[in-house]
Amino acid sequence: MTTTTKEARTDHYPSRKAETPSIIDRKDPVVYASGKEIPSPLTEDSVAEYERKGFVVIQDLFAESEIEMFRRELARLAVDPKMLERPEAITEPESSVLRSLFAFHLIGAGLTHLATDPRLVRIAQYLLNDDIYIHQSRLNLKQGFRGQGFYWHSDFETWHVEDGMPRMRALSMSIALTDNTAYNGSLMLIPKSHKQYISCVGETPGDNYKKSLKNQYIGVPDNDSLSTLYSGGGIRVPVGPAGSVTIFDCNTMHGSANNISPLPRSNAFVVFNAMSNRVEDPFCAQPPRPEFIASRETIRQLG
Amino acid sequence: MTTTTKEARTDHYPSRKAETPSIIDRKDPVVYASGKEIPSPLTEDSVAEYERKGFVVIQDLFAESEIEMFRRELARLAVDPKMLERPEAITEPESSVLRSLFAFHLIGAGLTHLATDPRLVRIAQYLLNDDIYIHQSRLNLKQGFRGQGFYWHSDFETWHVEDGMPRMRALSMSIALTDNTAYNGSLMLIPKSHKQYISCVGETPGDNYKKSLKNQYIGVPDNDSLSTLYSGGGIRVPVGPAGSVTIFDCNTMHGSANNISPLPRSNAFVVFNAMSNRVEDPFCAQPPRPEFIASRETIRQLG
Repeated sequence: MTTTTKEARTDHYPSRKAETPSIIDRKDPVVYASGKEIPSPLTEDSVAEYERKGFVVIQDLFAESEIEMFRRELARLAVDPKMLERPEAITEPESSVLRSLFAFHLIGAGLTHLATDPRLVRIAQYLLNDDIYIHQSRLNLKQGFRGQGFYWHSDFETWHVEDGMPRMRALSMSIALTDNTAYNGSLMLIPKSHKQYISCVGETPGDNYKKSLKNQYIGVPDNDSLSTLYSGGGIRVPVGPAGSVTIFDCNTMHGSANNISPLPRSNAFVVFNAMSNRVEDPFCAQPPRPEFIASRETIRQLG
Repeated sequence: MTTTTKEARTDHYPSRKAETPSIIDRKDPVVYASGKEIPSPLTEDSVAEYERKGFVVIQDLFAESEIEMFRRELARLAVDPKMLERPEAITEPESSVLRSLFAFHLIGAGLTHLATDPRLVRIAQYLLNDDIYIHQSRLNLKQGFRGQGFYWHSDFETWHVEDGMPRMRALSMSIALTDNTAYNGSLMLIPKSHKQYISCVGETPGDNYKKSLKNQYIGVPDNDSLSTLYSGGGIRVPVGPAGSVTIFDCNTMHGSANNISPLPRSNAFVVFNAMSNRVEDPFCAQPPRPEFIASRETIRQLG
């Protein structure tokens, strides 16, 4: 816990407080680096695209052989009864099939190396222009046939309200462990949505994460606001082979459809946050979510 | 009802009878026309593609102005309280939002013209090489945000078992009333799947259609069989502007994911059956489904 008291704080991105939804302009930079401090690990075009759209895809950042290793590890974990009993393991809404596994960066060996790979860390350090740590990591399996989707959401909305992340100075990397196609429930993003924050309605209930990680009902953007974002940027579905990495800003609106294809759509998802942006008390009336969902006490600076 | 008795009939495509699923080779032609009887309304390449893959897409068969007229009609029907009360109106599994409207070819005016448009009728007559009638028609709305998908299925499996359609001599046309994109739950098809019939497990319960039209659980292909079909043909997601028509064989495996985009994915779906292939008694122990789902008494020959 920090020493900040709830009373003294300004909430720059209020949500789940008003009775009607609203759209708030972003108050923070997207790219923090001015380009002078440290050499960029990304091309100038990629940085510009990330700034403009709120995401950029780097093809083949990982080699097929590396991905194959992670995939084997994932297959092993997905059927490990001990792993499935842990709170970090989230199953599908209608079955006991593993849907997500949180805090994989703490499992050790290959998976820890994946989450803290210098190629990823350098990009996050550059874009956030700060020392960084892992706020959250999860393996999303989205199995074939009956894998459920994720409805539209801004990660920051939840991290701000439920975890107490003060500002937009975090980003996510989604490492494709399987091919992303037009038919297996791939990530969908709304370009330019990161510059507007949708303030949602509905009070946060206790233990909300236990439900929201299966099916999100609170912190869900309203239809009119989504239509406004869609009018501004449309929808992009990056497709490509396993090994590509989608880097997206913490406030970029994203979601995915269900996956009825026989092909799983698995990815490893890592959230890097600036050390200067460490979480405080939540911006809602509930206690903080568990450590495996949001690093609070066990912060390890990277790089 | 026909005079055929259940005892005397051979079931060429048994399903929902055995305890394990199986794959049966198709026993019927795909393209019935030899090319000599009547001039083809399709190019030779399109006919060959339809024969080989089990479907073909004809871009811009309808003009934007025609589609706009149908779309207006659809928007009117979707909120018409009288229409929503009719058994032909199927709502979303978790809301009262209209999901499908059956037998739209009987509504009259523009919608009847759409379903019986000579451009469609001539293609069906050619491929089936017979006089034809409409076995079923439906408007599928798949609204934005929360529109649910349809799991994998062969239409013929249901029409055979629940409606008593004897052979594979029927085809469907899906007329896109909105743009089909990679992100709004577009139709997905498994190329070449039409040449294999998946015999499913599970007995057909009474009034199955009342549930299956919302969420299908009976007549659902098993994972192994789907994987076999997928290995043989992959998955295709035709995308394109409103006005295009996807013509697909009655046994082509198809389905769709849910639609979380703000853009609806609406289509008008018309099934043409050969007069020589009129439905008989169902191939299951249940009474026939209602007339608005499967034309039995009110057959009107087209063209």
